[in-house]
Amino acid sequence: MKKRGDSAISPTREEDYPQWYQQVIKASGLAERSAVRGCMVIRPWGYALWENITSALDAMFKATGIQNAYFPLFIPLSFLEKEAEHVEGFAKECAVVTHHRLEKGPDGDLVPAGRLQEPLVVRPTSETIIGDSFSRWISSYRDLPVLINQWANVVRWELRTRIFLRTSEFLWQEGHTAHATSGEALERTLLMLDIYARLAEQYLALPVIKGRKTASERFPGAVDTFSIEAMMQDRKALQAGTSHFLGQNFARASGIKFQNAEEKEEYAWTTSWGASTRMIGALIMTHGDDDGIILPPRVASAHVVLLPIYRSAQDKSAVMTYTESLARELKEIRYHETLLRVQVDDRDTGGARNWDWIKKGIPLRVEIGPRDIAQNAVYLGRRDKGNTDKISIKRDAFVAKLPQLLDEVQKNLYERALTYRNAHTITLDDRDGFYSLFTPNNADHPEIHGGFALSHWCGSSACEVKLKEELGVTIRCIPLENPSENGACICCGQPSKERVVFAKAY
Amino acid sequence: MKKRGDSAISPTREEDYPQWYQQVIKASGLAERSAVRGCMVIRPWGYALWENITSALDAMFKATGIQNAYFPLFIPLSFLEKEAEHVEGFAKECAVVTHHRLEKGPDGDLVPAGRLQEPLVVRPTSETIIGDSFSRWISSYRDLPVLINQWANVVRWELRTRIFLRTSEFLWQEGHTAHATSGEALERTLLMLDIYARLAEQYLALPVIKGRKTASERFPGAVDTFSIEAMMQDRKALQAGTSHFLGQNFARASGIKFQNAEEKEEYAWTTSWGASTRMIGALIMTHGDDDGIILPPRVASAHVVLLPIYRSAQDKSAVMTYTESLARELKEIRYHETLLRVQVDDRDTGGARNWDWIKKGIPLRVEIGPRDIAQNAVYLGRRDKGNTDKISIKRDAFVAKLPQLLDEVQKNLYERALTYRNAHTITLDDRDGFYSLFTPNNADHPEIHGGFALSHWCGSSACEVKLKEELGVTIRCIPLENPSENGACICCGQPSKERVVFAKAY
Repeated sequence: MKKRGDSAISPTREEDYPQWYQQVIKASGLAERSAVRGCMVIRPWGYALWENITSALDAMFKATGIQNAYFPLFIPLSFLEKEAEHVEGFAKECAVVTHHRLEKGPDGDLVPAGRLQEPLVVRPTSETIIGDSFSRWISSYRDLPVLINQWANVVRWELRTRIFLRTSEFLWQEGHTAHATSGEALERTLLMLDIYARLAEQYLALPVIKGRKTASERFPGAVDTFSIEAMMQDRKALQAGTSHFLGQNFARASGIKFQNAEEKEEYAWTTSWGASTRMIGALIMTHGDDDGIILPPRVASAHVVLLPIYRSAQDKSAVMTYTESLARELKEIRYHETLLRVQVDDRDTGGARNWDWIKKGIPLRVEIGPRDIAQNAVYLGRRDKGNTDKISIKRDAFVAKLPQLLDEVQKNLYERALTYRNAHTITLDDRDGFYSLFTPNNADHPEIHGGFALSHWCGSSACEVKLKEELGVTIRCIPLENPSENGACICCGQPSKERVVFAKAY
Repeated sequence: MKKRGDSAISPTREEDYPQWYQQVIKASGLAERSAVRGCMVIRPWGYALWENITSALDAMFKATGIQNAYFPLFIPLSFLEKEAEHVEGFAKECAVVTHHRLEKGPDGDLVPAGRLQEPLVVRPTSETIIGDSFSRWISSYRDLPVLINQWANVVRWELRTRIFLRTSEFLWQEGHTAHATSGEALERTLLMLDIYARLAEQYLALPVIKGRKTASERFPGAVDTFSIEAMMQDRKALQAGTSHFLGQNFARASGIKFQNAEEKEEYAWTTSWGASTRMIGALIMTHGDDDGIILPPRVASAHVVLLPIYRSAQDKSAVMTYTESLARELKEIRYHETLLRVQVDDRDTGGARNWDWIKKGIPLRVEIGPRDIAQNAVYLGRRDKGNTDKISIKRDAFVAKLPQLLDEVQKNLYERALTYRNAHTITLDDRDGFYSLFTPNNADHPEIHGGFALSHWCGSSACEVKLKEELGVTIRCIPLENPSENGACICCGQPSKERVVFAKAY
């Protein structure tokens, strides 16, 4: 066991992965638990990260013709009930508004008053309320497609919560589209899945597998659900975005009808797709190390922090002048779609300051002292390297190389994650090997084990249930790019035509 | 009375101002009522406008050091009760969550189940829940100031609702800051008021009066409330943004304490300030005419629409090629902080198409037909001018002049609104004149009357109550730039040192 003090975060990943996750978040200032059960506070460092993620995603949506809109927070209970599977899927986790004012009760305390005729559910997702608008917007094939996205908060009353991964309230976007044909709707479903994969790989530096969910893992009411799946450093899978082909189910429930070119009335074909603050959880668990989180440059809350170092008042003036002029210069540099985000931290807290920024996961740290200035240089540390692995680099070279340096960090994070995933993705055909893979083999660190097992599955839900019950393992997805191959189900031995991805999951 | 058909919107402003307001919104596609009582759907054309407003405001906030964060949607009832005036101010309009799931009831219908131990209020504003975080974030004067903003939805259960002006749910930003001294907090309160005034004047083209509210119009729990007040075309005032100096009231309620430089414990001084989708209502009622809304270019959902005109298939190909090349060229042009937002509408709906865009309030409409192309020209209509007032302009000159043209529209809208406000702002010293100003004098069009009366007030709330009861008139604000002047209260005749702004209000 590692001694305390070897790393900035205690416990380490190996010592206690779930606890490490809570501690890196705390140390980073990304978010914190709130006084409201299961709800988080996203702190400025976390919210800036979310703003960068959302602005990348929003631009990709708009480039495909999606328009943003906003729909009510509340859904009448009767709306939710219109699609039977849908309401069944969400009934257990609905926050329900039953009153619309507060009044002094008999003992002087304020109590809910003004009972609503119909209870309102705080949206867990908005298919039914948006469907209601669609039913009014759409009457002819000329009105189609309708391509809408909403950035919003949603509430799902979870019993066990974990910051970013599973909170009662979370932030997300939910896209909703309506089409004249099944083919067009399915194409849109897969296009949005592609966009999620692009966001994950190019911005969040998360390698993901695009795939189709089995029936048991589908969105309630969907015909087909697709997802992107990433591997965390405890080898569990995390679903980082889902895209649903809803067929005509929700159109029928909400009355979304149109006259086709032959003047016949049809139900529209709809899709919905969402990604949430959960992606931040994926990012933390994929890239973080025992010193804290590591932010991929493309979405980092800030790219570089300048840390002036001085002892005397005379030094301070020269160092601050140099630092501020460098900060101004850096803030003008373009990095992909944006300008460099630069922080200057002139607190005189010594080593604690440096560790603060390591724990915050900023990609680059730049120390500037009198000696650096004398050499017209800076002293550079990369967060993706060891914390003592720093180099002196001429100021001009540093400025010129900065975008490239950040791209190197980005690439390194992606490749490290891919290497990790590949190392723990195993093609398995024997049942014993499968059981052994998913059985913790070290009593001290039970959390880190398993991986992605590429194994055959006969297609029966009975086998899914059995593996879930016995091992806690589920089918994460049937990869989209999956070669056809004859084999035998890892559970029952019945014939199978393709391998699927089995894993434990968040 | 005007005949129907003279204008695109019926009724006209003069015929029925409140109904005109509903109709211009409907015709514009900005927003619509939803199936949920008092909640609106913001449609893509309205949401794009909101995105432009928020991005301008967000940039101004960040330039003063404000950071964004996100806090829970739900507020425990006990939190709201911590500040007595505060809870009293909001108790009548709180949506209350009492249950956290749905279950089949005795007759098979779903009913709320899982009663919460403590009811949760859907945030009407977030002083108390954010104060709880501040109490944990702040312990020393070194932690101050804390400068936070949140973009969020809030709920105030209003009995009479009107799209954008008063809805049960609305979108807004709420800023919350904490400071070591009263002076610094007051300075921040006024700085944010300045930013709201800048947004109103430079972006929304709304002339506003910055002022202080009287005690009866203060935010519940505030020491002082400041606002910007604009005049609508029915001469009523609309409060378009408020900034509150909260003194130590909320710090005391939430326990926001810090050790000062002398190591003594003190309560922090806090502020809060907000602006909402209500601003869109102000924009509609200030600039709209009897043909629909008019969007100020600095925030317009789109700046210019290209309308290709053709009869034959041969014409179509040439016209579309020309139109698309022009669209590409325009989309590269910078207009202030952004690129030009360009629409191409190639629907073959003839005149209806042109009227659609007039009703949508787009600043510039550009028709392109074979004759225009032959002259290498376009046919240009400005939304701030009459709808038949169009000119032919060479393509090159149009492209070169476009940002300037938009600035002219922007300036014209502002100046028209200022002229209107000045024409209906009256310095009044006699009581009869005051009563006559605020009494409808035309039974057919009772809505449009009154204006801003600059009159003396003794400072007593009794006079405020009397004028409100008898005339429906309130003191909108005591202007910040207000000359000291001896006079007599317009209501009771007692001595007064300054004039205030009286008006009917939204």
